[in-house]
Amino acid sequence: MNILIIGAAGMLGRKLSGALIDRGEILGRRIESLVLADIVAPERPDFSGPVETVAADLSMPGVAETVIASRPDLIFHLAAIVSGEAEADFEKGYRINLDGTRMLFEAVRLASRNQAYCPKLVFTSSIAVFGEPLPAIIGDDQILTPLTSYGTQKAIDELLLADYSRRGFLDGVGIRLPTISVRPGKPNKAASGFFSGILREPLVGLEAVLPVGDDVRHWFASPRAAIGFLLHAAELDTGRLGARRNLTMPGLSTTVGGQIEALRRIAGDKAVALIRREPDATIGPIISGWPKNFDARRATELGFVGEQSFDDIIRVHIEDELGGSI
Amino acid sequence: MNILIIGAAGMLGRKLSGALIDRGEILGRRIESLVLADIVAPERPDFSGPVETVAADLSMPGVAETVIASRPDLIFHLAAIVSGEAEADFEKGYRINLDGTRMLFEAVRLASRNQAYCPKLVFTSSIAVFGEPLPAIIGDDQILTPLTSYGTQKAIDELLLADYSRRGFLDGVGIRLPTISVRPGKPNKAASGFFSGILREPLVGLEAVLPVGDDVRHWFASPRAAIGFLLHAAELDTGRLGARRNLTMPGLSTTVGGQIEALRRIAGDKAVALIRREPDATIGPIISGWPKNFDARRATELGFVGEQSFDDIIRVHIEDELGGSI
Repeated sequence: MNILIIGAAGMLGRKLSGALIDRGEILGRRIESLVLADIVAPERPDFSGPVETVAADLSMPGVAETVIASRPDLIFHLAAIVSGEAEADFEKGYRINLDGTRMLFEAVRLASRNQAYCPKLVFTSSIAVFGEPLPAIIGDDQILTPLTSYGTQKAIDELLLADYSRRGFLDGVGIRLPTISVRPGKPNKAASGFFSGILREPLVGLEAVLPVGDDVRHWFASPRAAIGFLLHAAELDTGRLGARRNLTMPGLSTTVGGQIEALRRIAGDKAVALIRREPDATIGPIISGWPKNFDARRATELGFVGEQSFDDIIRVHIEDELGGSI
Repeated sequence: MNILIIGAAGMLGRKLSGALIDRGEILGRRIESLVLADIVAPERPDFSGPVETVAADLSMPGVAETVIASRPDLIFHLAAIVSGEAEADFEKGYRINLDGTRMLFEAVRLASRNQAYCPKLVFTSSIAVFGEPLPAIIGDDQILTPLTSYGTQKAIDELLLADYSRRGFLDGVGIRLPTISVRPGKPNKAASGFFSGILREPLVGLEAVLPVGDDVRHWFASPRAAIGFLLHAAELDTGRLGARRNLTMPGLSTTVGGQIEALRRIAGDKAVALIRREPDATIGPIISGWPKNFDARRATELGFVGEQSFDDIIRVHIEDELGGSI
């Protein structure tokens, strides 16, 4: 089993390559080699077999052909320009998030002309494919009405994934990830950053800013759950998907207040006191249009598993990022 | 008012340029000049003002820039590779139906960098953006699940139209046309061709083949109604659309049996006797997956008007194509 991860240098990409190496096998076959690609050189993980690292932009001519040159049996395509940047830089967003993905799919299609080749391909989409007006609980048949260029690009990628799969050029599964929390690392400028920051910083004794009200509701999964989604998607019998190759992943719907109470139960009032409320007139309206809750029935019936409580999400963070204790 | 029609040599394109010339004005302004573009040179209509005809492939570099060089105030983009050809030739379908459309939108976006420019743009999408499983009556919130490459390309174009409109690069309206019947001209190889053929040929004393059963239900509008949709879309106050720029057009749902009975009422048993039943094992299954009926409420509320009976559709054909009598 030869596996390609595109976006391997990112948070999920690094966790995914680690998880694959720990397992040693997937789809009942031993993992023999890895190709790790990203716009910056991915770190070389400790793995017994050959690892190729590629630092390149998937949207540049020839790069897609290069990364699939070894004909990977399984491809994880996680690479994307994030929402804020795709909105700020229209051309870059379309180039990376649409053209890059399409060039990958095209390289796979063209590779199959000379030899039998139809890799399993797991693509990370986003709940940003949905936009207002939205029902309180969003079902699997919700129409895709993205209200950002990022969401538009992901929705287009989903359509391409389904058509390339229907035509037999690749065997694709698209998974719409919830907002990942608690995201490890430094605070960033993403509008959604506080959903992790208000937990991550207080858990290590640092202040965090909360720019929205406690009643703001959103849809979450831990990084560990996200890796579980990716691995389950890779092993999924796609015959069960029919023509609908893209799935909303199960998550946990809670409010900022619910996040804070979970923090209080696990880390006490002292941690909660580190959250500083600073309402932000820019972030508030952005967040208010985001999906709040889903009934991810198809994915659940297909065996995808998210968290049941935000306490669990915080515990995952403590176990996976903080050595098990605070 | 300077108007560009892309796909001007096709059946709808020719009727549209004729209708515009007959009106003389649109959006309250006099029509001063026309640019008519298609892959083959459009016929030069009888018009008092300047008419530029362009024979070029929109997906070739520079063509989109050329056709908008005069900065048309209103653009009708009707050009596409049809469903069957897009399925048979994967690359050509994506090149014309996706890349060509995107290159047009990009040319418009880039033109607005140096001067204020935001044309009204009417795009013809298709009910092929929908695919099984479908409810008996398809509402405006139906999820887009195309089951052909053509439908995929149209669905992607719809997403692009909405995003380019949201960003203010153009002012777009996408209209999903019903199957056009009675389509004038010669029989063609389209799977849907018989929906017109079984009326058009008997009305002039010729035999026609019916490859499916009388119970097959589908969604129709006349060419005259389609031109009405295009003109109404051009004049629509797009502020009423919000972020959802693509609309299912009102049509008439009837069965093949209903078409035949309408033909009998208008042209008698002798005409009906010219329909030869020859079940076709290829066409039957293709047609069975097509949408059968819609509740096109949004478009109806926005003032789009289709036919109320198939008798009307046949009468339109007799008036517009057969000089008013049979």
